[in-house]
Amino acid sequence: MEGLAEMTGFAAALLDEIREASLDPPGVTRASYGPGEQRAHDIAARTGRALGAKARVDAAGNLYLTLPGRDPSLPALVIGSHLDSVPHGGNFDGAAGVVAGLGVMAELARRGVETERDLIVMAARAEEAVWFPLSYPGAEAALGRLPVSALDARRADTGRTLAEHMAELGFDPGAVGRGVAQIAPDRIVGFVELHIEQGPRLLARGEPLGIVTAMTGGWRFPKARIFGAYAHSGAEPRFSRSDAVTGFADLVAATEAIWDQLEAEGRELTITFGRVESDPTQHGGSRVLGELGFSLDVRCEFLEVLNRVERELRQALATIEAHRRVRFDLGQSFNWAPARMDPRLMAGLSAAAGRLSIPAAPIPSGAGHDAAAFAAAGVPVAMVFVRNANGSHNPDEAMEAEDLGLGIALLTEFVLTFGAG
Amino acid sequence: MEGLAEMTGFAAALLDEIREASLDPPGVTRASYGPGEQRAHDIAARTGRALGAKARVDAAGNLYLTLPGRDPSLPALVIGSHLDSVPHGGNFDGAAGVVAGLGVMAELARRGVETERDLIVMAARAEEAVWFPLSYPGAEAALGRLPVSALDARRADTGRTLAEHMAELGFDPGAVGRGVAQIAPDRIVGFVELHIEQGPRLLARGEPLGIVTAMTGGWRFPKARIFGAYAHSGAEPRFSRSDAVTGFADLVAATEAIWDQLEAEGRELTITFGRVESDPTQHGGSRVLGELGFSLDVRCEFLEVLNRVERELRQALATIEAHRRVRFDLGQSFNWAPARMDPRLMAGLSAAAGRLSIPAAPIPSGAGHDAAAFAAAGVPVAMVFVRNANGSHNPDEAMEAEDLGLGIALLTEFVLTFGAG
Repeated sequence: MEGLAEMTGFAAALLDEIREASLDPPGVTRASYGPGEQRAHDIAARTGRALGAKARVDAAGNLYLTLPGRDPSLPALVIGSHLDSVPHGGNFDGAAGVVAGLGVMAELARRGVETERDLIVMAARAEEAVWFPLSYPGAEAALGRLPVSALDARRADTGRTLAEHMAELGFDPGAVGRGVAQIAPDRIVGFVELHIEQGPRLLARGEPLGIVTAMTGGWRFPKARIFGAYAHSGAEPRFSRSDAVTGFADLVAATEAIWDQLEAEGRELTITFGRVESDPTQHGGSRVLGELGFSLDVRCEFLEVLNRVERELRQALATIEAHRRVRFDLGQSFNWAPARMDPRLMAGLSAAAGRLSIPAAPIPSGAGHDAAAFAAAGVPVAMVFVRNANGSHNPDEAMEAEDLGLGIALLTEFVLTFGAG
Repeated sequence: MEGLAEMTGFAAALLDEIREASLDPPGVTRASYGPGEQRAHDIAARTGRALGAKARVDAAGNLYLTLPGRDPSLPALVIGSHLDSVPHGGNFDGAAGVVAGLGVMAELARRGVETERDLIVMAARAEEAVWFPLSYPGAEAALGRLPVSALDARRADTGRTLAEHMAELGFDPGAVGRGVAQIAPDRIVGFVELHIEQGPRLLARGEPLGIVTAMTGGWRFPKARIFGAYAHSGAEPRFSRSDAVTGFADLVAATEAIWDQLEAEGRELTITFGRVESDPTQHGGSRVLGELGFSLDVRCEFLEVLNRVERELRQALATIEAHRRVRFDLGQSFNWAPARMDPRLMAGLSAAAGRLSIPAAPIPSGAGHDAAAFAAAGVPVAMVFVRNANGSHNPDEAMEAEDLGLGIALLTEFVLTFGAG
């Protein structure tokens, strides 16, 4: 493909520069509003300016690099993602999407062409919820939608608030708190986010790219518990046990049965116990356990499936409680809505992939992304996934630069044709 | 029953004195070779001497209170248990057995009768394995059977060795290490231990006493692990998961099925997971778990059942590994042999209970006791369980003093008739 080597080389070099600036072996650390993230923003701003884009930083520290189009009256197209990472994370989760947007600008420059409408590359702040217990506060602030209470959320490592961290870097938490939109949703024709896939579907298919159909919604009980009665393993006969472990195993089996049934009906979903813990001050080889803590996370792109799983789960809990003489306390839940991708943007991406003969089949997104914040604000969104091994949030993320080069080629074709359409 | 009020009152007062001397709210603390245990030994020695017994303390600090019988050529009958407790434990686990022996001496004195053979009340040291990771080191040392390496075992709270703790109280770890028996096994006609039941069988039966049939043997994997692959809960589809949690739940279900089958065959056993832990540095709401640690403890009085469970368990593991793409590492196991009670002693206790019209049906012991050390040394042993609520190793142990009074009555009848037989 004409230009692929250049696009691949540009992306690889820029990602290497960002990696070097945030190295924290193993992997990289770019804390939300921390020095690694800031250095990545500085690199992105410098690179965008060198490609002829205007740089703007909003009250929350989000970066916008705007390459003016032929018709400034048209709403802009935004390509964006985030630049923060988990501690000792991989270099690609987030950064690949910003680098892809800059790669499009570089390719437009190399070809000497311009777009019909403004092209904005956005680097959002603070997407990784490991730092602040919030969903996409950077993107939400950009859209004027961050609840003022979120400014009091504390970063897990520093204990300082989001407002303090914003102010420390010279941003304006006051303006964020007043809910002023930093980018007008009605002036955006679409928000397109390229991201590494965090699962193995593209690898399994042997395809470099996928076009996301929807971001799953979900619900989670992060601090669920099951209570039985502590007893001596040898002295407590089976008839009188209230064993938290057998009750928990029954729960896992019940959720597996629910999953089996839904899968048989052709539904895709995930059900995950991400934490299982007995009390270290109580457990031991000769104990019947009187308590287990666990988390339960269910995701699906269909709200009715999510509701059905919760309904069937609660029936299962009642059965287990009666059968095992245990008691469940699921604790507080949090829920997030599925985000559908915009059909017109998806069709535009598909058509562009077709013209370039790049395989880019539909693929679901099980994780949340900045695009979800834009979708919730009524902005049409789309996402492109890039093949990646070993998942994300770990230093072993393994995206091939050439796959990202293909992603840049697809986005370039898309911005040129979608902008003209 | 003639004398029951006196026996009950004696036991209650002595137990209260021991409780006061080791109070550590909630509950009592009598660490092995700690001050609480020592004060309890001092109280027992003073009480025994006041009842006419000779007191002797051996090289390991075990206490023997000997009331001479009419025929010093006959081997002695020993009634014994331990005086240590777990931290913040109940007052009865161990102490009830020593108090019962002293209660027998008090009742003999009240009646003005003596026994045919010497009656020894033994207070063994260090039975609670929470302090030293050893099985009955006090009783084993008394029998000259403590491995010399055990003297280097460190107490969990102080980090100091068993030898250091013995020496600190003026005992002689050197003699213990040389394996000199402190009480000659061939000079004991029987070792009888009264102990609170640590399960609910007697409560469920509504009976005050039970005659133990056997102490279960068992095997335990204290540090077993199951390995899968960590992944993102939303991004990792079901087909590619290696989920440690579902593998663990399958294991619990498999052990339940093994237990069901053996129960259907009339076998009593216990299967217990006493610890289940995901890695706190890895787990979280959005994680598929790549590892779980757990312990597995199986107990039964029949060795062939224990072997069969292990065989069927290993078959189940292989099936689960293939089905769930996980791997088990059971780690080091430790095993202990079942200890059978002596039929002649059991029959003597049963006959005595019958004469007194005290219900004392057969009952298994799922926990280990000092009597196991004597059984392993070839000494005939028997045990009497006393009804107790809320299990043991916690401050809520609830034995009624009158039930212990009945135990003393039973033992008194037994020593008078067995000694004469």
